[in-house]
Amino acid sequence: MAVAVQSPVLAVTTGEPAGIGPELVLQLATGEPFPARVVAVGDPSLLAERAAMVDARVELMTLAPDEPVPAPKAGVLPVWPVALREPSLPGRLAVANSDYVLETLDLAVRACLAGDAAGMVTAPLHKGVILDAGHAGFSGHTEYLRDACGVDEVVMLLATDQALHASEASWQGGAALRVALATTHLPLKDVAGAITDERLARILRILRADLRRWFGVTEPRIAVCGLNPHAGEGGHLGREEIDVIVPCLERLRGEGLRLDGPLPADTLFTPRHLAGVDAVLAMYHDQGLPVLKYAGFGRAANITLGLPLVRTSVDHGTALDLAGRGVADPGSLRVAIALAADMARLGAAASIS
Amino acid sequence: MAVAVQSPVLAVTTGEPAGIGPELVLQLATGEPFPARVVAVGDPSLLAERAAMVDARVELMTLAPDEPVPAPKAGVLPVWPVALREPSLPGRLAVANSDYVLETLDLAVRACLAGDAAGMVTAPLHKGVILDAGHAGFSGHTEYLRDACGVDEVVMLLATDQALHASEASWQGGAALRVALATTHLPLKDVAGAITDERLARILRILRADLRRWFGVTEPRIAVCGLNPHAGEGGHLGREEIDVIVPCLERLRGEGLRLDGPLPADTLFTPRHLAGVDAVLAMYHDQGLPVLKYAGFGRAANITLGLPLVRTSVDHGTALDLAGRGVADPGSLRVAIALAADMARLGAAASIS
Repeated sequence: MAVAVQSPVLAVTTGEPAGIGPELVLQLATGEPFPARVVAVGDPSLLAERAAMVDARVELMTLAPDEPVPAPKAGVLPVWPVALREPSLPGRLAVANSDYVLETLDLAVRACLAGDAAGMVTAPLHKGVILDAGHAGFSGHTEYLRDACGVDEVVMLLATDQALHASEASWQGGAALRVALATTHLPLKDVAGAITDERLARILRILRADLRRWFGVTEPRIAVCGLNPHAGEGGHLGREEIDVIVPCLERLRGEGLRLDGPLPADTLFTPRHLAGVDAVLAMYHDQGLPVLKYAGFGRAANITLGLPLVRTSVDHGTALDLAGRGVADPGSLRVAIALAADMARLGAAASIS
Repeated sequence: MAVAVQSPVLAVTTGEPAGIGPELVLQLATGEPFPARVVAVGDPSLLAERAAMVDARVELMTLAPDEPVPAPKAGVLPVWPVALREPSLPGRLAVANSDYVLETLDLAVRACLAGDAAGMVTAPLHKGVILDAGHAGFSGHTEYLRDACGVDEVVMLLATDQALHASEASWQGGAALRVALATTHLPLKDVAGAITDERLARILRILRADLRRWFGVTEPRIAVCGLNPHAGEGGHLGREEIDVIVPCLERLRGEGLRLDGPLPADTLFTPRHLAGVDAVLAMYHDQGLPVLKYAGFGRAANITLGLPLVRTSVDHGTALDLAGRGVADPGSLRVAIALAADMARLGAAASIS
């Protein structure tokens, strides 16, 4: 008897209800041949209200996480329900709904760990309102999911869906540009002190392991940025390369990691240095993400590595000013879903083989 | 009687003689319709030797700076001679020739200030060998020219010759991406402390004035990056935006400057925010230059603003490993010359009108 191979189930959280998340999620019910069975995680009333507001005809199919998710069908959106704490209006943050946002994440994590979903994809949340709600120390999806999964370290990786640069043919046959970060949401003045041997080694080992597991790269080649301009220029522009980064990379090469660098960030992101590279490790947020987002141009997504599950996200914020108008661009959410579906398939294959 | 309008004379220094500079300069004698009369500044024997090495047929026409420079002719390169201190071999740095490199700069500056040249364009020098030669504190062309011209502050601006991104049509009709830096060659740990109100105000005033003078922009619109990730996110990720940058921009807006920001660097470099922007001010080297060089892809050039003369430069280094082989790409030098020629014409027009 032939067994139907079903596409992976992906749990997609609505994110901040006052932002563009709910209407982006509604756009997933187009019936297009998606590489996944998408389930929204959120409040069905919220989704119905937003659908009316942006003139989307979507039938919401409420399911429990352990019920089977049907194949995609035009105009139908399966939903795992989570109740808003109070009604939400576009553009109007409500402190009470912070617990709603976190509950959608908790439900998606449980579904992934229980095997009811092959991965989770998150629409943007609003950090400020979650802090205002009293969740002191909340610093974003990535760190919340790290704690929810009980792991010590995660790695933020951003990827374009493909190289959109005019010269794309000159490296990786037009494959994605991928940039991981050694530090994420730190004030700039604290970055240099955070670049330690221990952190770099942990991050690079996770990056290597997850490029193998989720991206199907047998032995990834990773290009590492210096911390300082010109990668320190032999110590003239800072000593962290000499004191920390070079010795760390040398030791990891001894363990078999394929590492280029440390290289000056402004020469690394050129075809000559990107050729054959599977991912770039930038030392900090604004060293790596401006070029990634310029290259991705609305078609980039954020991936959390180091978790026991697949998690991708849009690369943009809640856009409160655009919410409820039906004008938000779903490009990044689509890339995030396509990436999560690919990762789920490759990860499943890796765990079988 | 009709007066022939002649193109501007540009003095082009060879830079480090052991690098690719001399052979790049030789490639300017192709007789292509250049928008300038180019004069090399360097050692004629060096140029003749390198021409033989890379199989270039170039007749060197030695001139004094106050002699007329003829119109461009295929195969002929006018030269203002400066003598090497010792013979130079490709790839072999010689400490003694550091004085040669600096003398070419001094000659070019004098020619510009005397009106014998409309601008200067520099091939790359090697900072390390100039430091080794005992010029303590030497930190590059930009700072050397600042001191040679007796000004207090200069601004490093990089520009692509055009927007090469796939989406170029969506802003400025495909015009150049221009990125200026608030700080340049500082260790990363020293950057936050260097972002002061005084520095930002000086840099932004120079940027505005020189975009008007040399680029013909009547009232430039400048987009300013935050220092911290997400531009500090309301103080959660650093306070320099609130304490320094925002008040400084407010005051300058009161003086009539058109300023956007401070904006997160990873959202600024997207078409939505670049639309209508004449230049971006990045707070530091690796926040602005990776994206500029990715976008420029070998066709970007470096411009020094704040000088009483036009100065542009290639955006790459000496490439000692490629020198003498005739394989170096002259793309950036050509952009630097085209930019300098444009700036010289627009600046001359501004000083007449």
